[in-house]
Amino acid sequence: MKKILVIHGPNLNLLGKREPDVYGTLSLEEINKKLKKSAKLKKAAVEIFQSNHEGEIVDAIGSAPGKFDAIVINPAAYTHTSVAIRDAVAAINIPVVEVHISNIYKREEFRHKSLIAGAATGQISGFGAESYLLGLDAALGLVK
Amino acid sequence: MKKILVIHGPNLNLLGKREPDVYGTLSLEEINKKLKKSAKLKKAAVEIFQSNHEGEIVDAIGSAPGKFDAIVINPAAYTHTSVAIRDAVAAINIPVVEVHISNIYKREEFRHKSLIAGAATGQISGFGAESYLLGLDAALGLVK
Amino acid sequence: MKKILVIHGPNLNLLGKREPDVYGTLSLEEINKKLKKSAKLKKAAVEIFQSNHEGEIVDAIGSAPGKFDAIVINPAAYTHTSVAIRDAVAAINIPVVEVHISNIYKREEFRHKSLIAGAATGQISGFGAESYLLGLDAALGLVK
Amino acid sequence: MKKILVIHGPNLNLLGKREPDVYGTLSLEEINKKLKKSAKLKKAAVEIFQSNHEGEIVDAIGSAPGKFDAIVINPAAYTHTSVAIRDAVAAINIPVVEVHISNIYKREEFRHKSLIAGAATGQISGFGAESYLLGLDAALGLVK
Amino acid sequence: MKKILVIHGPNLNLLGKREPDVYGTLSLEEINKKLKKSAKLKKAAVEIFQSNHEGEIVDAIGSAPGKFDAIVINPAAYTHTSVAIRDAVAAINIPVVEVHISNIYKREEFRHKSLIAGAATGQISGFGAESYLLGLDAALGLVK
Amino acid sequence: MKKILVIHGPNLNLLGKREPDVYGTLSLEEINKKLKKSAKLKKAAVEIFQSNHEGEIVDAIGSAPGKFDAIVINPAAYTHTSVAIRDAVAAINIPVVEVHISNIYKREEFRHKSLIAGAATGQISGFGAESYLLGLDAALGLVK
Amino acid sequence: MKKILVIHGPNLNLLGKREPDVYGTLSLEEINKKLKKSAKLKKAAVEIFQSNHEGEIVDAIGSAPGKFDAIVINPAAYTHTSVAIRDAVAAINIPVVEVHISNIYKREEFRHKSLIAGAATGQISGFGAESYLLGLDAALGLVK
Amino acid sequence: MKKILVIHGPNLNLLGKREPDVYGTLSLEEINKKLKKSAKLKKAAVEIFQSNHEGEIVDAIGSAPGKFDAIVINPAAYTHTSVAIRDAVAAINIPVVEVHISNIYKREEFRHKSLIAGAATGQISGFGAESYLLGLDAALGLVK
Amino acid sequence: MKKILVIHGPNLNLLGKREPDVYGTLSLEEINKKLKKSAKLKKAAVEIFQSNHEGEIVDAIGSAPGKFDAIVINPAAYTHTSVAIRDAVAAINIPVVEVHISNIYKREEFRHKSLIAGAATGQISGFGAESYLLGLDAALGLVK
Amino acid sequence: MKKILVIHGPNLNLLGKREPDVYGTLSLEEINKKLKKSAKLKKAAVEIFQSNHEGEIVDAIGSAPGKFDAIVINPAAYTHTSVAIRDAVAAINIPVVEVHISNIYKREEFRHKSLIAGAATGQISGFGAESYLLGLDAALGLVK
Amino acid sequence: MKKILVIHGPNLNLLGKREPDVYGTLSLEEINKKLKKSAKLKKAAVEIFQSNHEGEIVDAIGSAPGKFDAIVINPAAYTHTSVAIRDAVAAINIPVVEVHISNIYKREEFRHKSLIAGAATGQISGFGAESYLLGLDAALGLVK
Amino acid sequence: MKKILVIHGPNLNLLGKREPDVYGTLSLEEINKKLKKSAKLKKAAVEIFQSNHEGEIVDAIGSAPGKFDAIVINPAAYTHTSVAIRDAVAAINIPVVEVHISNIYKREEFRHKSLIAGAATGQISGFGAESYLLGLDAALGLVK
Repeated sequence: MKKILVIHGPNLNLLGKREPDVYGTLSLEEINKKLKKSAKLKKAAVEIFQSNHEGEIVDAIGSAPGKFDAIVINPAAYTHTSVAIRDAVAAINIPVVEVHISNIYKREEFRHKSLIAGAATGQISGFGAESYLLGLDAALGLVK
Repeated sequence: MKKILVIHGPNLNLLGKREPDVYGTLSLEEINKKLKKSAKLKKAAVEIFQSNHEGEIVDAIGSAPGKFDAIVINPAAYTHTSVAIRDAVAAINIPVVEVHISNIYKREEFRHKSLIAGAATGQISGFGAESYLLGLDAALGLVK
Repeated sequence: MKKILVIHGPNLNLLGKREPDVYGTLSLEEINKKLKKSAKLKKAAVEIFQSNHEGEIVDAIGSAPGKFDAIVINPAAYTHTSVAIRDAVAAINIPVVEVHISNIYKREEFRHKSLIAGAATGQISGFGAESYLLGLDAALGLVK
Repeated sequence: MKKILVIHGPNLNLLGKREPDVYGTLSLEEINKKLKKSAKLKKAAVEIFQSNHEGEIVDAIGSAPGKFDAIVINPAAYTHTSVAIRDAVAAINIPVVEVHISNIYKREEFRHKSLIAGAATGQISGFGAESYLLGLDAALGLVK
Repeated sequence: MKKILVIHGPNLNLLGKREPDVYGTLSLEEINKKLKKSAKLKKAAVEIFQSNHEGEIVDAIGSAPGKFDAIVINPAAYTHTSVAIRDAVAAINIPVVEVHISNIYKREEFRHKSLIAGAATGQISGFGAESYLLGLDAALGLVK
Repeated sequence: MKKILVIHGPNLNLLGKREPDVYGTLSLEEINKKLKKSAKLKKAAVEIFQSNHEGEIVDAIGSAPGKFDAIVINPAAYTHTSVAIRDAVAAINIPVVEVHISNIYKREEFRHKSLIAGAATGQISGFGAESYLLGLDAALGLVK
Repeated sequence: MKKILVIHGPNLNLLGKREPDVYGTLSLEEINKKLKKSAKLKKAAVEIFQSNHEGEIVDAIGSAPGKFDAIVINPAAYTHTSVAIRDAVAAINIPVVEVHISNIYKREEFRHKSLIAGAATGQISGFGAESYLLGLDAALGLVK
Repeated sequence: MKKILVIHGPNLNLLGKREPDVYGTLSLEEINKKLKKSAKLKKAAVEIFQSNHEGEIVDAIGSAPGKFDAIVINPAAYTHTSVAIRDAVAAINIPVVEVHISNIYKREEFRHKSLIAGAATGQISGFGAESYLLGLDAALGLVK
Repeated sequence: MKKILVIHGPNLNLLGKREPDVYGTLSLEEINKKLKKSAKLKKAAVEIFQSNHEGEIVDAIGSAPGKFDAIVINPAAYTHTSVAIRDAVAAINIPVVEVHISNIYKREEFRHKSLIAGAATGQISGFGAESYLLGLDAALGLVK
Repeated sequence: MKKILVIHGPNLNLLGKREPDVYGTLSLEEINKKLKKSAKLKKAAVEIFQSNHEGEIVDAIGSAPGKFDAIVINPAAYTHTSVAIRDAVAAINIPVVEVHISNIYKREEFRHKSLIAGAATGQISGFGAESYLLGLDAALGLVK
Repeated sequence: MKKILVIHGPNLNLLGKREPDVYGTLSLEEINKKLKKSAKLKKAAVEIFQSNHEGEIVDAIGSAPGKFDAIVINPAAYTHTSVAIRDAVAAINIPVVEVHISNIYKREEFRHKSLIAGAATGQISGFGAESYLLGLDAALGLVK
Repeated sequence: MKKILVIHGPNLNLLGKREPDVYGTLSLEEINKKLKKSAKLKKAAVEIFQSNHEGEIVDAIGSAPGKFDAIVINPAAYTHTSVAIRDAVAAINIPVVEVHISNIYKREEFRHKSLIAGAATGQISGFGAESYLLGLDAALGLVK
């Protein structure tokens, strides 16, 4: 049974309340339920972690190998500013799938550049909560 | 039954022979078979179109509404240079999913910028031929 | 009797249906009727050509001298990306008037730069369908 | 009867003598005569104002509503440097047509950028003194 | 009794009528009344000056020392283009407080850069008419 | 009684000792006393929080609504690098006032750009410890 | 006997008539005669293709391997805008020599950058029609 | 007898009091005396004009031909922002010598760029009040 | 006896496993042993601290004065993104030596810029684990 | 008999030993032999000069007219940094052909810009040692 | 008696023959005669040095103090590329006057930036050979 | 016994006299003594070379292999402008250690970029004369 670590970056704890025209009205809890249900269907397991702290996300990525087969990460605001998360992604030898709820290329100029994408396996952006489910599928495809 | 138009951009006719370390060893025909098989499973239909001509791709997008429910497009080189394709995508009222075989954010600087992404619904990049299948799933999800 | 070639660039075949808040609700056919009516009043003739293909537009410009006295062109998306159309404009010895339906300087940054303007005689931008009629007047003024 | 305010920006008082290969040999007075004659034909009135002072042009624009139906302005050098004139144009609720004698896109790089165009209704550039007459027509069309 | 010079830059004479969603619905006169009332409460005096002319604002700043204890200035459009006002601010030895009605950092890119801020004592931006009152308080604090 | 959360960003715990020519000689404790005294006078309450951790500041902002009526924040170094704090500010529906002790526009180029300002209600910069008191007044004004 | 494909890009059909001070007075036909004569002398064969259509040039390059030993291409305006031609050049395994009639480094800034050069074997620029003959020699040298 | 117009730009009326470490301790009056004395020695006449108003400086330059043989101008802050003064200088047919008291290339980056220099005959920068006297000599040399 | 604080930034806990062609095969523990041995030889003491958290590194630097004579820091990914660490380094009055295992100037463009270097005493880059030992020597030299 | 000066720029004395994957394994002496042999065949003479000193290359170019009919130069590293060599090339009235062994457009960004190309007659790049022979042919063609 | 070192930079040995429309028709020898005559009149001495070698110019500047009272230098092409000459100018404690024959601000963009000006006392540009004589006067004024 | 070549770049002959607040008061001779003494202690030999000539430094580097085991170089001003020295460093197969007396990252923007660092083994910057001794240690460590 494949194990996938799902990491939610900063402010995603506010989902549903936060700028719903950009991020939708689903809460993080509801997205997590969808992820668990989808994983179950595909006979995989997900562990879910949310943090507003760059350092905690770096810690989580660095200690994932051995415990998880792949990572699905929505780095949120750290997408555009964190070389530390990029380096953590590059430092490990399991696939990392970067996902975004909104289409970051339709937003402010500074959100068009992902520091993580250059180190991740691939990126999925713009499908709302569905981005996570597509990301889970992509991760499972990569570890088959 | 949902109908999806799949558009392959320039030089994708050379897949399999073209820089296999970047684009993989599958031929376009093999990818198309996978797409048809996947669509069938999901009780949808795909029509597939490849062209090296920017104008033909603009034509195809502009005449898709009414005939198709969504578009999956790999704009290939035109990703980075075609405002005409971007405008065609923006001009129609059906979802457009942009896909890339390679992770464009790991390649030359000029490939990091997609002119299409700002008009498409979402983007999937870096999962090899699997990007198309994820794109098909995303498109079907959007038209449900 | 002066003869003017009017060239409509990519996606203008979708006028009326395409982003009506940007491009208005007149169809291309309706604009063409206005152009023919206005030309008739001024005892001139217009020939009208629309294409989504950069190469066809280059062909049309290159073969205009001898057959037409001036060109009115709305290069649409190719305004911002086509050195080939710019070079065609520079290569011929009849006046070329560049027109735009929307005010391109009120839109996205990448639409502020016209590659064609540096080779055309002049530019008219932002007056809706009226831009074409002003462009026809300007062209007729130039060939008097 | 529609009333149009025509504003000539800095150094246009020197027309005819000033760099005639760029700006032509017509004096400002001769252009003004053409404007008045053309307005008369179209049963409209023009009032003409020239100033080298940015502040006076801002004053004139700000006090135009109520007295004029539209403005035709050649901001000349202030095209490229005056946010104050841009803000005045944006602050009023009558149409403003920006005109240029020379094709500003064929000249020095710093003349390619108009600060005014982003606030004006539209722009006409490169037809010599004829730019003013086309601008007058455009303004009259907008206030019909 | 401290004396403060309040300078309103270009187009602020149009306040209330000008883009009310950006600048609010208070007229300049109403703001001036609030300023005078607030000064009175704090046993200070304000003199108020509005001009659309960069040169007049430079004159006013240059002749303020000796007559005023501090300046509160809303340079409006000149914020982004006037080195002359910046130099005037730097040339005098009394405090200068820069204020803005709108939050200039939420608007167009070219409004994010203040040439005045590098010479002023401090800047207050984004609190509507309240920015002036906070600016008056700041100025009075600086000259205590 | 209005409740205001005051957030001090990284290195502000060193105030008084840290580059006193830039940040003044007051310690953070002394500023906090001034804030509390000023709040008391205006019949409001302040809660004060200092952290060197970006994630803790994001946490604090995200959980403020419901507990506080407004936030006064000096993001210090994170002003220039934290999209996460910007997103937290944008995610909540209470006013946020950004303050800076030094005039950031008189310092190194990289300090001229605030990522927070585009999401905050307004910004006050350059008045020393007084910036906090003006910020408190501004916040109280916004929640009246 | 070696076979070389010579590709002439957009507007080169107008050679001789087009800006003769930049491109010389030889027609394309005359250059083609020189190329055939030179090839004959070196016991090689040339096939010549001109198109104004980016897509046709991409088609031609993609189908050259197996039929030709090398390509000599003057991409003309597409030099500066076509990633599709660049990708076609990179996709095939025969040498490609880029030639230019004029010295592109003496012309407008936007002509200094060749997108093709990073994929071609080498580049020859500035020797008039002679550039083609040197290019033919270079191509024959590469396939010896 | 040659007649030279000397123009002093904005804030130069404050010379002697204004940032004496940058601009020296001589007042404008003292510099003017030196200029008159030097002109007298060389049997020439100077007329001196100071203004903080860009428009007045444009007026003065535009009306100089016929009355003066050459202009010596210190455009001060307008050096870096005034296309209007540049155009005035370019519009007239008498020599214009640009002078600066301080070495503008040793100061802030934005002072390194002179918009005037591209239209003036020559530039003299950095010799204190002496720059004016060298400028007068240069002007007299040009009109010999 | 001099006391030196050695700070290892984010992801350095993964040394030996992490991209060994870039960072070498020594583990962090092995480098720490070398540091302690070298310090002992020079009759100094080192205390070693690793963290993936920017805030913890800021805390550590801010509280070092009084307890340590100098700092040797490898800021790793935070080198390129942390103004907070830069400000902490600038806030304290003991020497700080910046070290890097790899030569950051041979890597991706975004790694060429160190935000820390402008505040540190000096920088040593590119000598593998040896960079730390040279950094320790440099620090000891500075506090002699 | 035509006389051609061949100039080899800095570090070309190390050819064969220096980065052979970039510059090939031929020594400079071997290239010189090929050049002399080729010149002899075409009944021309070459004189060869190598220097690592920018000044010596400037000297050589400046004194070539009268002694040589044309120059073939590989400016090597000075291609990208020497305005002095560019000016020397522009100062003389004999043709100058710029050659490069490697394709400079396939290498580091800073090697894509040639300061020399804007002054030379033409450029040949990327054909290994063959670039020199093509350059010699080009030079002889220019002086026929 | 004051002694002035005059340094002529690269290619100035070609004056009179080199691009006479830019640099005039006077030879370097003729300019030198003018300089000596002018110095004699002012009871000063000039020593003149021309070199195409950056290193020799650095040597000359570095050894000037003690032997000369001031330097007049036309750094020619090295103006735009030599940090070494800039550092030499900054390293010595005698005045250095930078002169240019042509107005460098009217020429190519890359000639608008002088690396030397930031270290020199002042700059004189655009007066032809007269620039040297004005430079000599300026130097003598500085050492009075 | 290891032999190290130490190269001092332009203007370092002026050390002690040259801007002592930046470069310290030690003369080059004194630094050289320290280097020799330190080498002796480590049973190594140093040969020392200073030149203001870029070409001589290129010569010295190119001929070092075979005679020396490593190079310690302070390229001084050529750090920022010399591709020729970079290429020489890249061309040889012995380690090269780049050293700087001052911390180049604390100085003018143009000194932040080292062209040499991308080719050298490592860089040491900011420790005064001590930078050379650390560089010597680093070099000896590399050739062990």
